Amino acid sequence: MPHATKRSNPSPLGELALLERIRLRAAQAPTPELRLGIGDDCAILRPAPNEEFAVTTDLSIEGRHFHLDWHPAESVGHRALARGLSDLAAMGARPVAAFLSLALPRDLVQKPKARSSLGSAARRSAPAPFIDRFLDGFLSLAQAYQVPLAGGDLAESTLAVADVVLTGAVTQGAALLRSGARPGDLIYVTGNLGGAAVGYAYLAQLAAALKRDRSRSRLKELPRIPPKSMAVLSPHLYPKPRVAQGLWLARNAMATAAIDLSDGLSTDLAHLCAESGVGAELDAAALPIAPNANAAQVLHGGEDYELLFTAPPAARVPSSIEGVPVTRVGRITASKRSISPITLITPKGAISLTPQGWQHFS
Amino acid sequence: MPHATKRSNPSPLGELALLERIRLRAAQAPTPELRLGIGDDCAILRPAPNEEFAVTTDLSIEGRHFHLDWHPAESVGHRALARGLSDLAAMGARPVAAFLSLALPRDLVQKPKARSSLGSAARRSAPAPFIDRFLDGFLSLAQAYQVPLAGGDLAESTLAVADVVLTGAVTQGAALLRSGARPGDLIYVTGNLGGAAVGYAYLAQLAAALKRDRSRSRLKELPRIPPKSMAVLSPHLYPKPRVAQGLWLARNAMATAAIDLSDGLSTDLAHLCAESGVGAELDAAALPIAPNANAAQVLHGGEDYELLFTAPPAARVPSSIEGVPVTRVGRITASKRSISPITLITPKGAISLTPQGWQHFS
Repeated sequence: MPHATKRSNPSPLGELALLERIRLRAAQAPTPELRLGIGDDCAILRPAPNEEFAVTTDLSIEGRHFHLDWHPAESVGHRALARGLSDLAAMGARPVAAFLSLALPRDLVQKPKARSSLGSAARRSAPAPFIDRFLDGFLSLAQAYQVPLAGGDLAESTLAVADVVLTGAVTQGAALLRSGARPGDLIYVTGNLGGAAVGYAYLAQLAAALKRDRSRSRLKELPRIPPKSMAVLSPHLYPKPRVAQGLWLARNAMATAAIDLSDGLSTDLAHLCAESGVGAELDAAALPIAPNANAAQVLHGGEDYELLFTAPPAARVPSSIEGVPVTRVGRITASKRSISPITLITPKGAISLTPQGWQHFS
Repeated sequence: MPHATKRSNPSPLGELALLERIRLRAAQAPTPELRLGIGDDCAILRPAPNEEFAVTTDLSIEGRHFHLDWHPAESVGHRALARGLSDLAAMGARPVAAFLSLALPRDLVQKPKARSSLGSAARRSAPAPFIDRFLDGFLSLAQAYQVPLAGGDLAESTLAVADVVLTGAVTQGAALLRSGARPGDLIYVTGNLGGAAVGYAYLAQLAAALKRDRSRSRLKELPRIPPKSMAVLSPHLYPKPRVAQGLWLARNAMATAAIDLSDGLSTDLAHLCAESGVGAELDAAALPIAPNANAAQVLHGGEDYELLFTAPPAARVPSSIEGVPVTRVGRITASKRSISPITLITPKGAISLTPQGWQHFS
């Protein structure tokens, strides 16, 4: 609490020193929309005359969204930002500014002790603190998507929590909403589905095996992951938000509704149906399946951060948008009175698809 | 993790049901700036043609910013929102929309068990869950300041964390910055100082006494606080952000710089000096002292959420703004090369004032 402890001699690891480090790292060329970044009580954003702002916030919580002993810190930072970028993509908004509220245990802002137990010369020097590696991942993705870090908050905590706010610009009235799908519209998804779930399952196996091997060591972290494993892990560790695809859809006024696949196809499509007051049929045979993904991972696995959108039958939806394949996977129907709004059409017949994606507190 | 557990039968306490409850409670008349609120991937905000947006985020963390066994849940919600409203006040911005990211342990979203140990009839019925009481406090303040809850995130956690995002509108170029103070400017504060620190100290005493009394009971929470104690506690539990005063200052182009007193006078004035590249002198005898506050509480106690601002000597700063007293407390000087930019002028002479307000990680 502010009044609990008084210090006349703040340590160089104090909040202000950390904020200054983040401010220096975040510094970049000013943008037309970001008038004032880190350093004042608020940031100041100004949209272009015919634009409005999309705003989204996403929590990333230790033990829920990431595990300190499973996930490289760079991936934690990347994923925390990717969630919000994907929300902007689903609105067809161009990223304008990011804000990062970071609550961290003290040991994650300090340099870890040298790990001589690992033996290799490369490991003898102490690695960077979690916060620096987190920022590496966060700021790399921010740079790739040209979104400046404009502010946030920093606090000490017993649990690592990041809350990321993304603001994006979209032409007034042109945002892709969840609520615009109409019966007869066709359903499309970008990329393929289930890859993040496959990566997550593999990461969990890796972490369990390492835990067994090192139960007597004091290591808490994964070693660097070999490149051949990265292909399997990367959809989970380093997802690519479909911002360019969302912008294309908004620019071409092609979609009647859109949502990003963060909680899983069955759950996110149900959200879209609920907001639009419609039902949906999915063609099981048409679903684009990520390598090695099983049916549950395709239907319910979350965090693929692909876009799902609907368009009228007459719309000329291309087979790929900005280099990413687009697949027609079903159609919007009239609202259904059953528990699930979604029917899965399989070679063996039609079955009701219950949303089974991630839900907190259940 | 999204892929860790699958449930075919989400409980009524699940995330979606909670979100729906919050959405219903947050529902209110649409505003010109909030085009789309809770329910889509993002909210959509549109400023008036000659306005820009101020954005701020503030973490409130269990064990740091609040204690579950000290603070009434309504106060936790009130204070979480007040922090951001105060940041808007310091920019001279009009609140437009709030976003709430809430990470909560499961037992804080469930109805607590009945507490027959307290004996009184009023207590026999189980109180509302923490989340509902938190929202009572949050939404009451939101309504008082006419700021709609426009979105956010919700997740299960082992630690209670709220991150609140506030957006406000300000005439383009009219925002009050920290960086505009110039040597010769006079320094003013609204209200009085140290009241929140006095309230906090009293609350800590109350909590400690109750803990002794009930060390064998299973009660974790404070009883309702008698009205006569509320006068002492309320600057800490229910601070009033000075939004009307900030708006007045921006509208009248009266201030050269402004900051809100959240970390304590010595720390926040040092921030303003750093951003403006100046020093400051404070007249100890002029400082407006809250009832019962000692010197340390006045100089370093945070969370008063008063405004500190600077204005040229020729400015006609009134003795009260929108019903709140305004006191001249010092003057801006040229930049100092000493450790602290602030000198405190006392009857016994001038002393260097080291920032001793709250700082995380130190």
